[in-house]
Amino acid sequence: MGHGMSEQKAPSQNTVRAICALGLVKGVPPEVAAHVASLARVDVLPGGAGVFTQGAVAQRAYAVLVGAVRIRQIGSDGAQALMRMIAPGEMFGTVALFTEGYYPADAETAMPSHIASWSKADFMALTMHSPQIAINIIGMVGQRLANVQNRLREMATQSAEQRIAHALLMLVEQSGAVQAGACEICIPLRRRDVAELAGTTLYTASRQLAAWEKVGLLARSRQMLVVRDANKLRRIAQGGLL
Amino acid sequence: MGHGMSEQKAPSQNTVRAICALGLVKGVPPEVAAHVASLARVDVLPGGAGVFTQGAVAQRAYAVLVGAVRIRQIGSDGAQALMRMIAPGEMFGTVALFTEGYYPADAETAMPSHIASWSKADFMALTMHSPQIAINIIGMVGQRLANVQNRLREMATQSAEQRIAHALLMLVEQSGAVQAGACEICIPLRRRDVAELAGTTLYTASRQLAAWEKVGLLARSRQMLVVRDANKLRRIAQGGLL
Repeated sequence: MGHGMSEQKAPSQNTVRAICALGLVKGVPPEVAAHVASLARVDVLPGGAGVFTQGAVAQRAYAVLVGAVRIRQIGSDGAQALMRMIAPGEMFGTVALFTEGYYPADAETAMPSHIASWSKADFMALTMHSPQIAINIIGMVGQRLANVQNRLREMATQSAEQRIAHALLMLVEQSGAVQAGACEICIPLRRRDVAELAGTTLYTASRQLAAWEKVGLLARSRQMLVVRDANKLRRIAQGGLL
Repeated sequence: MGHGMSEQKAPSQNTVRAICALGLVKGVPPEVAAHVASLARVDVLPGGAGVFTQGAVAQRAYAVLVGAVRIRQIGSDGAQALMRMIAPGEMFGTVALFTEGYYPADAETAMPSHIASWSKADFMALTMHSPQIAINIIGMVGQRLANVQNRLREMATQSAEQRIAHALLMLVEQSGAVQAGACEICIPLRRRDVAELAGTTLYTASRQLAAWEKVGLLARSRQMLVVRDANKLRRIAQGGLL
């Protein structure tokens, strides 16, 4: 991480609270969770800052405390795709510490963010000494696997409209704040992000988002997208008509 | 698992050896690996036998010792897709024990198979008491995640021809036996399996496989597919011409 662009600080009380609320330390004794927080480095980054680079040796495991991170992967054929948006409370760059040791994608902040991270040595020691932390990691990676497998099946069997609906519903689940029945997706999304998450073209995604805005299913609030009727969107995702 | 169709037996020496060679017990002391083997149930199943059903409560974790297993998922829209073939030495049905507790797919033998399995209680106890086993599971699930993410990116960016080439290369990696420079995929594959793994139609997959057989890149040996030139297939996967 470029230190010129980040302000690094000792964990504040808010930060410790955010770290103790991570799925990573679910069911772990409070003193172990506090130890996990004490080992964290916290970087305060502007939007568009690189956190790690595809192909680099994995040296740290990360969590978003505030903000959002884009995970983008470039294939051997040169084509790039958004693999996932990481919302507050979620980890990223973790699996590479346990597999071949290279980050499989680029990670970049999508907005001003607070990013916690742990060195590989500390993270592996935590995993070795706390079976509950290891089990939490298996659960998180397993949940990620289930999500990606669902998306893969959708790609083979569903229309672009359904896949765009699924992509928005996943973002609502990750980061949705419900206000007066509407769900605001608290991650700044470009139309290109939605297209790539749904595995469709920018043209198709733009046309679909505009159509849904026109009928009032979606709205924009500042940079954020608001889903005004999540149930209707769920019916569309399942192949029903608007 | 239907006990009417399976012959269950105490682990033989061969079986113990096969279990001790699983990635699950990599780096684990021999006495712990032997304990893992002693806790296993082994089912000897014919081809086409169901191992578990999508939506059922996850009660056991499984590994293929001999044979192969198809993992098929049906979506909320009713469409079904082959998610993965499981080759000897690989585990399946494991993640559900750590996540919401329901199998996310159907598992069915693709040929006569020996399947080892562990009860949820035993498997969780092994994970709690051996951090190395937990770390091995994170590595396996993480590798699976990386594979599925690659396939997802391919779906968005690559031609059907490239995706079929990638699907065959993955199968070679999982279960390939190299003989005189050619790689035999030791899993019986229907053309429909290849189509679903590559996320394309049966028509497109059949036409592509036939074209590759015609030019001698692929051959059939009994029920199995033989890749006669893996390097050429790799070039096709990367977008080069045949």
